[in-house]
Amino acid sequence: MTQMMQSLLEAWRPGHALPGGLYSDPQVYEKEIRAIFLKSWLCIGHESQIPGRGDYFLFNMAGESVIVVRDAAGQVNALLNVCRHRGSRICDEATGRASRLVCRYHGWTYGLDGSLRAASRMPEGFDSSRHGLRRLHVRVFVGLIFINFDASPASFDPIENDLSAPLAPYELERAKVAHRQTYPIESNWKLAVENYCECYHCQPAHPEYSVGHGRAVPAAEQAALLEPVMARAQAAGLSQQFYIRNSWLAAGELGTDRGYKRYGLMRGHKTGSRDGSPLAPLLGTIRDYDGGATDLHFGPMMFGLAYCDHVVLYRFTPRALRKTDCEIIWLVRQSAVEGKDYHLAELTWLWDLTTVADKQIIERNQAGVDSRFYEPGPLSPMEEFTGLFLQWYVATMRAAAGGVRVEG
Amino acid sequence: MTQMMQSLLEAWRPGHALPGGLYSDPQVYEKEIRAIFLKSWLCIGHESQIPGRGDYFLFNMAGESVIVVRDAAGQVNALLNVCRHRGSRICDEATGRASRLVCRYHGWTYGLDGSLRAASRMPEGFDSSRHGLRRLHVRVFVGLIFINFDASPASFDPIENDLSAPLAPYELERAKVAHRQTYPIESNWKLAVENYCECYHCQPAHPEYSVGHGRAVPAAEQAALLEPVMARAQAAGLSQQFYIRNSWLAAGELGTDRGYKRYGLMRGHKTGSRDGSPLAPLLGTIRDYDGGATDLHFGPMMFGLAYCDHVVLYRFTPRALRKTDCEIIWLVRQSAVEGKDYHLAELTWLWDLTTVADKQIIERNQAGVDSRFYEPGPLSPMEEFTGLFLQWYVATMRAAAGGVRVEG
Amino acid sequence: MTQMMQSLLEAWRPGHALPGGLYSDPQVYEKEIRAIFLKSWLCIGHESQIPGRGDYFLFNMAGESVIVVRDAAGQVNALLNVCRHRGSRICDEATGRASRLVCRYHGWTYGLDGSLRAASRMPEGFDSSRHGLRRLHVRVFVGLIFINFDASPASFDPIENDLSAPLAPYELERAKVAHRQTYPIESNWKLAVENYCECYHCQPAHPEYSVGHGRAVPAAEQAALLEPVMARAQAAGLSQQFYIRNSWLAAGELGTDRGYKRYGLMRGHKTGSRDGSPLAPLLGTIRDYDGGATDLHFGPMMFGLAYCDHVVLYRFTPRALRKTDCEIIWLVRQSAVEGKDYHLAELTWLWDLTTVADKQIIERNQAGVDSRFYEPGPLSPMEEFTGLFLQWYVATMRAAAGGVRVEG
Repeated sequence: MTQMMQSLLEAWRPGHALPGGLYSDPQVYEKEIRAIFLKSWLCIGHESQIPGRGDYFLFNMAGESVIVVRDAAGQVNALLNVCRHRGSRICDEATGRASRLVCRYHGWTYGLDGSLRAASRMPEGFDSSRHGLRRLHVRVFVGLIFINFDASPASFDPIENDLSAPLAPYELERAKVAHRQTYPIESNWKLAVENYCECYHCQPAHPEYSVGHGRAVPAAEQAALLEPVMARAQAAGLSQQFYIRNSWLAAGELGTDRGYKRYGLMRGHKTGSRDGSPLAPLLGTIRDYDGGATDLHFGPMMFGLAYCDHVVLYRFTPRALRKTDCEIIWLVRQSAVEGKDYHLAELTWLWDLTTVADKQIIERNQAGVDSRFYEPGPLSPMEEFTGLFLQWYVATMRAAAGGVRVEG
Repeated sequence: MTQMMQSLLEAWRPGHALPGGLYSDPQVYEKEIRAIFLKSWLCIGHESQIPGRGDYFLFNMAGESVIVVRDAAGQVNALLNVCRHRGSRICDEATGRASRLVCRYHGWTYGLDGSLRAASRMPEGFDSSRHGLRRLHVRVFVGLIFINFDASPASFDPIENDLSAPLAPYELERAKVAHRQTYPIESNWKLAVENYCECYHCQPAHPEYSVGHGRAVPAAEQAALLEPVMARAQAAGLSQQFYIRNSWLAAGELGTDRGYKRYGLMRGHKTGSRDGSPLAPLLGTIRDYDGGATDLHFGPMMFGLAYCDHVVLYRFTPRALRKTDCEIIWLVRQSAVEGKDYHLAELTWLWDLTTVADKQIIERNQAGVDSRFYEPGPLSPMEEFTGLFLQWYVATMRAAAGGVRVEG
Repeated sequence: MTQMMQSLLEAWRPGHALPGGLYSDPQVYEKEIRAIFLKSWLCIGHESQIPGRGDYFLFNMAGESVIVVRDAAGQVNALLNVCRHRGSRICDEATGRASRLVCRYHGWTYGLDGSLRAASRMPEGFDSSRHGLRRLHVRVFVGLIFINFDASPASFDPIENDLSAPLAPYELERAKVAHRQTYPIESNWKLAVENYCECYHCQPAHPEYSVGHGRAVPAAEQAALLEPVMARAQAAGLSQQFYIRNSWLAAGELGTDRGYKRYGLMRGHKTGSRDGSPLAPLLGTIRDYDGGATDLHFGPMMFGLAYCDHVVLYRFTPRALRKTDCEIIWLVRQSAVEGKDYHLAELTWLWDLTTVADKQIIERNQAGVDSRFYEPGPLSPMEEFTGLFLQWYVATMRAAAGGVRVEG
């Protein structure tokens, strides 16, 4: 770690925004990728995206590309999209189907498990078994696909242990992807995460969200809205658990963040729609709208929002120092039929509009923190979760410098 | 200062062009911004651009953005366009009108003087008075707005003291902006300033200018052209002073350059038009065309040309290492009516055409000095003012390295 | 040389691809330009491009620009396209004709030999004879123009000595450029050269080439195809020499690579056309199609392919760290008439299509080697020439670090 990075981290005052240099230094960025993104469990999609043998999609992050493919045994594999010969990318298309993975440069051919099956005219003594595609650790949980680039990643079990019970009624493993959309943001990834993690900006910036969601009001009002929701939970078929927040430093091992937090919708609202009325059939074993919604957190960079009739997943993926993709995945019940049971334009209305607004907000934030005169200001109590993110970020980066393991 | 920067500065031979590395090193550029641009008086516009309460325009330079706004008391304020909360830009539009400056991220609200008026839901003990927008020093002189980013800038008085008398007849405080145009140049800012500061290139490159202006001829001929002009000055209502050149090292304190230099137009020419005939009503108290024009210099990066019927201001603003904006402002008498008293196409013809030509020249110059084999050549006597600029530049940068104050 | 560059070079294992960092480090790139490209003989075109006095074309490489112009005495000169005054580029157009080279900035005027002929208003004592354009070493060999940026370049003689006899029958000095095309590739230059130097990828990637050319088959089959070709050589008027490969470390002095290697076309093929049938009149003194083709190598970055009826020259020119131009020049007999003796679409079909395919392959390769997890794999025996290139590259860069001269 350079001295500049060290002193930027030292300069951070808890309860305040980050020093500006942390958003613009290429060495800080590269360190973040290695110390955070390549060591964390990343939720990269849903099983329904690759239902059949040989179906694949690519996951691209910070210059890395991964082929996520279902093999003949039905297992999901994540393979580095880099040929073991001279390093060519193997797959170009965002999605596809293949029985073998063939590098179009010299024809090296890999199985769907990454093993090298054919490499013509190699000299004697060449050992195919040592030249398979690099395999990443994969876990599928409630239909969601998680990968980890690290050779010895933290255990995934804490995520599964904490979230299995409260997520059970949603039966996400029986959901399908109704729509995916990527919003490229011209900013450092941290500004996007900071934005997502607080609702202090909801009232000034997101009137469409604030009219229906109890997160935009102060803590005491939030509590009052939540009370009837929790009273109805059991009858509606939802967990009575309302709060798990093993996020950031509380996650324990790096990259195993998991959170589940219920909150009330505004009176009369059943889901995140224009007027609060339903958008799709109820998910899983849920029997009724209980007037609430749930904030989700899986691994450090995947957030989500579970309504009774659909789930919205939000992933922040760094592409470059000042380029971040926000990908949204809308999940509905697998049996739901588009045009009949749900309408895409209505389903995606709220979070498309909100994300387009946030993109502009975040880019304006980047422009401002680039000023040589920018001074990080104090956070409001409504930015508590963003404050915890910053605390974790600084601790993680300091530990990465010293090789110390960060634990909660 | 890095060793490379040091040795590039040492390598400069007086009377020659600069070593090539000074035009392409990002660290040199950043040092220039801090040591020169953020410490100098910068002329950024004219009062007539913001006549009413709450009228504002943005001034952007090298990643910085400033809101230049007229407050209720009629005063012009220059406020850093960076929220004191988490650093968002506040205003996006190049010009506008506002009664308060509201950050659209979290709604923090500032007065037109930059003071923080509202920040909802901040914790007890939060001190609004310490979270106003950063205010820059501002001076308005003959209607021209000057700002300085430095907390303790050099006194503006030398500029005012030297230029008040000779500029009085033009009454620029009663002028108006007839047109503004920005010409983005793909080059380092120094190549643009070097180009502006000499007329050795006028005859080969600007026939339209050279046909009317005496600056394009050698010194002896210039003197002959100036003589009748000075004889007519008093009768025409212009100052009899013909030369003030407290520029570059002669300016004394860094960033207080000021210059006023009269020269003759070619026989029969009254102003900078196609055929020398008038373009607009006479300015201020000027009573007649005296056959001359005046080179102006205000602060290190604003130049200008005063004719009897209009003034052209030229500002060079660095945007990035190899991106420089040249902004031109055409000023005419406030009471002049477009389409009747003056015609925009004619008024702007000469300097638009000349600047478009210079843009190409400067970009070609950048391409050449980027060669690893470029050898800075000797200057002609007609490039004397460019030579003084280079001398000042090298001295200023060396002083910035040692923390020594440069004086003339 | 930085420590990082050093350790990347150390990390290379002979017989394997290069470590990824060598394709993405800007300091490595700059070192390569200085240690390799600015010291090598570069074949930049053919005399027929500038038949008359004052005809010129520009050669641009890695930020440098050279004016290649024929003077009154008929000599070809290569002049740095940088004015000796303040460094402006002099010529902008890719090709043109001029009697003098006039800098459009201040009118400095140079002869076609680069000598300064006029510079107005320079002070007494200014010595024109010391301000001519920088002249590069030039050699014209069989009509091909070679330049060298180095002030004391390696002798050109080894190239001429080795290749004069075998190239004589082609009479390239009596050829003409039928077509030139530049293919910009978004990759580091080394990936483009590695690609050109091996035919392991021909069968998977270039079916159109492989159907007619014996290079795409293993060594034993190649030998069988070559035998009848060599038997026919004398009768066809071609050299009986079939192999000169003083390339890479075998070249001896840096930048003097030269190679001539015959191989057989597939049965029934006379040249590199769709179906193997002739494309143009026989070149030079060649009397018949002998069923073979010839790989050429002139200086490290110019390759070529000589058929009996046309020659294809391939030059790789770095433009930036990840931008490389591949320029192809198609040469035919000077007397050949387009539309009658040859048809451009047919003449250029094979190598246009093959280069377009290679561009995509090479860019895919760049994307892959950018992965932090890329591991250089082992080369096949069919990549021998690429392996020799890598060996030379690593040795040359190591020597450049220590100032040691590399010899074969």
